[in-house]
Amino acid sequence: MPVSTLKRKLIGTPLRTSEVPHQRLSNFAALAVFSSDNLSSVAYATEEILLVLVLAGPSGLSWVWAISLAIAALMLVVATSYRQTIHAYPSGGGAYIVAKENLGVYPGLMAAGALLIDYVLTVSVSVAAGVAAITSAAPFLYPHRVGLGILCIGLITLANLRGVRESGRIFAIPTYLFIASFAGMILVGLAKQLFADATVPGQEAFAAPAQQLTLFLLLKAFASGCTALTGVEAISNGVQAFRYPESRNASVTLTWMAGTLLSLFIGITILASYYGVLPRDGETLVSQIARNIFGTGILYYVIQAATAMILILAANTSFADFPRLSSILARDRFLPHQLASLGDRLVYSNGIIMLGVVSSALIWLFQGDTHALIPLYAVGVFLSFTLSQAGMVRRWLSRRTPGWLRAVTINGLGAVATAVVLVVIAAAKFIHGAWIVIALTPLLMIMFRKIHEHYTGMAQQLSLQGFEPQKPKEQIILVPVSGIHRGVVTALQYAKSLSPHVEAIYIDLDVEATETLRVKWGLWAGGTDLVILDSPYRSVVGPLIEYIDGVERQHPDAQITVVLPQVVPARWWHNLLHNQTAWLIKGALLFRKHVIVITDVPLHLKQ
Amino acid sequence: MPVSTLKRKLIGTPLRTSEVPHQRLSNFAALAVFSSDNLSSVAYATEEILLVLVLAGPSGLSWVWAISLAIAALMLVVATSYRQTIHAYPSGGGAYIVAKENLGVYPGLMAAGALLIDYVLTVSVSVAAGVAAITSAAPFLYPHRVGLGILCIGLITLANLRGVRESGRIFAIPTYLFIASFAGMILVGLAKQLFADATVPGQEAFAAPAQQLTLFLLLKAFASGCTALTGVEAISNGVQAFRYPESRNASVTLTWMAGTLLSLFIGITILASYYGVLPRDGETLVSQIARNIFGTGILYYVIQAATAMILILAANTSFADFPRLSSILARDRFLPHQLASLGDRLVYSNGIIMLGVVSSALIWLFQGDTHALIPLYAVGVFLSFTLSQAGMVRRWLSRRTPGWLRAVTINGLGAVATAVVLVVIAAAKFIHGAWIVIALTPLLMIMFRKIHEHYTGMAQQLSLQGFEPQKPKEQIILVPVSGIHRGVVTALQYAKSLSPHVEAIYIDLDVEATETLRVKWGLWAGGTDLVILDSPYRSVVGPLIEYIDGVERQHPDAQITVVLPQVVPARWWHNLLHNQTAWLIKGALLFRKHVIVITDVPLHLKQ
Repeated sequence: MPVSTLKRKLIGTPLRTSEVPHQRLSNFAALAVFSSDNLSSVAYATEEILLVLVLAGPSGLSWVWAISLAIAALMLVVATSYRQTIHAYPSGGGAYIVAKENLGVYPGLMAAGALLIDYVLTVSVSVAAGVAAITSAAPFLYPHRVGLGILCIGLITLANLRGVRESGRIFAIPTYLFIASFAGMILVGLAKQLFADATVPGQEAFAAPAQQLTLFLLLKAFASGCTALTGVEAISNGVQAFRYPESRNASVTLTWMAGTLLSLFIGITILASYYGVLPRDGETLVSQIARNIFGTGILYYVIQAATAMILILAANTSFADFPRLSSILARDRFLPHQLASLGDRLVYSNGIIMLGVVSSALIWLFQGDTHALIPLYAVGVFLSFTLSQAGMVRRWLSRRTPGWLRAVTINGLGAVATAVVLVVIAAAKFIHGAWIVIALTPLLMIMFRKIHEHYTGMAQQLSLQGFEPQKPKEQIILVPVSGIHRGVVTALQYAKSLSPHVEAIYIDLDVEATETLRVKWGLWAGGTDLVILDSPYRSVVGPLIEYIDGVERQHPDAQITVVLPQVVPARWWHNLLHNQTAWLIKGALLFRKHVIVITDVPLHLKQ
Repeated sequence: MPVSTLKRKLIGTPLRTSEVPHQRLSNFAALAVFSSDNLSSVAYATEEILLVLVLAGPSGLSWVWAISLAIAALMLVVATSYRQTIHAYPSGGGAYIVAKENLGVYPGLMAAGALLIDYVLTVSVSVAAGVAAITSAAPFLYPHRVGLGILCIGLITLANLRGVRESGRIFAIPTYLFIASFAGMILVGLAKQLFADATVPGQEAFAAPAQQLTLFLLLKAFASGCTALTGVEAISNGVQAFRYPESRNASVTLTWMAGTLLSLFIGITILASYYGVLPRDGETLVSQIARNIFGTGILYYVIQAATAMILILAANTSFADFPRLSSILARDRFLPHQLASLGDRLVYSNGIIMLGVVSSALIWLFQGDTHALIPLYAVGVFLSFTLSQAGMVRRWLSRRTPGWLRAVTINGLGAVATAVVLVVIAAAKFIHGAWIVIALTPLLMIMFRKIHEHYTGMAQQLSLQGFEPQKPKEQIILVPVSGIHRGVVTALQYAKSLSPHVEAIYIDLDVEATETLRVKWGLWAGGTDLVILDSPYRSVVGPLIEYIDGVERQHPDAQITVVLPQVVPARWWHNLLHNQTAWLIKGALLFRKHVIVITDVPLHLKQ
């Protein structure tokens, strides 16, 4: 079986259910595991802000400081707010759980929808940005960016299907390399400016500003920069992965992550401003800064490699989160339950594959362009932030545990701040793509509800409560035959072993053939009744179904079983040489509302 | 059901089997019906000859006379030869039948393969040439010729699926319009040359001849012109459509057809030569001649319309011949028997659809270029001519009926002449596309044989000769269950009505769920044994099949039936929300070599 061998080579041998791993992470490892999504946004957040401000010329660029500081302040508020979630939900408090528990099912589903979209976009944006880091260093790859992106996602998907664990070891090296190399670049860059040749390279020549510096433009720049906050919730989802005392350790790690992010983000903003670097096509802002500071030497390539790696790790984070959330939703009957079953390697394979396919499609649709994808990105993130914080507020208000007033103030501030930002982003980025997410979230909610209705409806209909098994009824066996041969005789014999009431049914398509059958029937059919039906229009299924209808009307209490003699060819292509009448009959019987049992009696051909 | 409504609108309501029409044609109508394929080649045969000769410059063109006369002589030989086939096979003597009866199965299959290819090419070539007639008159349509060609084929396919009969009425008008208008054009053209302004427009200026005038070039020109003979065999296939005395009437009609073809073909050659017209891209030769004679007036458009119509009728002829031949081959078990069954409108729908699809694909592959398709065309035609004539020779030699010597001489001359032409065409056109047909014919023969082997092998294996029905065995019923609910209880009840030996099988994937089931089982399962199987790798099908294997080993004489409780959702998309485990189990059981009966006990959900 070549397909299953290929699968085994790619995915690995199946693992036993008893091998589900349980591991706890040190804070050092946990920072690496949980922060890649958040920290990686340093690679593009500043660029996204400048991309908007540059439209208003030099006077616009001078606002980069104010906007970066506003984002830093927002980050502090959100991080503080999430510290409280960590303490309140030591077993893991994702936005879906917090919103559902405290605000109700629908806000929970809204958060879930926003999060699923967010995870898909995290993969697409991170991979697109990672590929941009690669093509900045190797411009000849630029025309192949879509293919490269999809290849990346394919490899990540495969790695996750094999069961890449969130092990500290895999994550630690790229994450700390990224932190160290960026911190180093920032320090060297600043030092060069302060001590060495303090000549700031002239601001690049400006064409006339394309737009006026308006409040809307500033809000748009702010909205673009808010992507820096994505991933800040990751630690609150994974409190269980920390060592005892879990909540305390998680909360400390969150503080470290927020601090690191802020330092790097502000650092890159300072460098971009000092070195007068502006966004341009085909090379990322970070790549330009690194070239300015290090030249195109080995250190430059280290920066680019670290950037690409952490971005791909960030994508990998979604490959843990998306299948986990969809399995929770599946267990709550809001998604198909196939998403809740563990694959060969003890991972939620179906969710992993779905994420790989959808995020690849996005990369292809948006031609691997980070700037085109980012407007879609932050809406979902901030919607889930807002719902999660609002859930916390509701929780404090209803429990009133000691210290609730301080707690409700912090989460309230978080909820209000993220809600305001949500509105800003939705408005500023609406026509650039935010509308897609705004339209998609309610559609997902409707889908969740429809799926839920199906499962609960089915459970009711299958429920044994009040079910009175009916008494065994008369058995009537009908055997449609296309002639008489070994397969038919075998099927007739089987039919007679079930019930004395057996009728064979033959459709008369050709007078001669029918006459021949009548003669042979007497010899071979062992006395079974043969019903011959006319078919003026040469249909086989039509007259058969009509006849079955008639039998049903005459024997309303009988159990009707249709026994189909089935000749199974030895080779697949032989199927092309046979009318697939058995399938047509099965299809027609399946869509009836009455219970007709269908029995296949196979006869295997040997050649 | 919208699909079936659409089908009814396009194809029409089904016809009763008893409505199969029986009609006889007058010679006048029969000439129209059977000659369109043959006569239509007048539209392109001269052009194909000139297209080769023009390469050798003016000295090449002077050979057009000799070549046309050689083709005319060949036509006389072939037509005379076919007159004998008509008398020998009054019930219709297609090349397949004549070759199979007299030369053996393989020559018959070779003729059949060549004919099937020929029919496909007739459609592609005729439609491409018909579209060329249209785009010559309306050059702005030239870029859309592929689309137009495929549209034409689609309409012809549809008309044939509705059951366009070979009725004299439909065919008579375009065929006789074509004959009359071409005859008129030839007469007017000749008169203009003889009596009116006898200035021959100067032969178009020549570039230096591209090639030397070699014997090979002349043979190539001859080979190209031989397409004029295609369709000459049509009458011999359809003798049964003539009135009494059938053979005589058919033979007279064949003479008329050959005479008409020769007159028109030679006429067009004379005109091309007198008016000094040469082939050129974007306009057909006939269109240029007609413009020279009539100007671009109404008579010009009549010529073009008549050309386009007869070419499309010629394509339509194949839509009668291809399905008829493939239904004969299917009845002889050389093609899938679906090709032998009559569709809703009493036509061989599957053959019609297959021809439509394959010929459209050719139009698209060759970009609607008549000149590119024609090299493929004549090989198959002459191969079937040769085999058919050779079959006749063999027939006379073995029967030696009175007058056999004269008969064998005529058919022998026909066989030799067509064989020589076949070799000429195959050699001259080999690299231009004839190799495709030469390679395809044996492949088709291999396919015919493989299909035949399958059907005869199956018939043997299904044969009741020497078949001893085995005694009824012990019945063991196995019911795989995924839990316990109404569907399962219904299935268990059904199983118990079949045999006292019923075992339910459950795969343990989750300790808790298994424990719950055990408790409920006692309450609801009515004492049926429950077998619980371990599945360390979470596979459902694997352990189940292993267990069934075990049962089979323990009870080698028992008949095992697997009863599958099947929940049938109310809407198709609900299927996405269910594991299709039942299908996986069926698939795994179907590919076993032991006979295991599979029974579906459905439970229909209502919402």
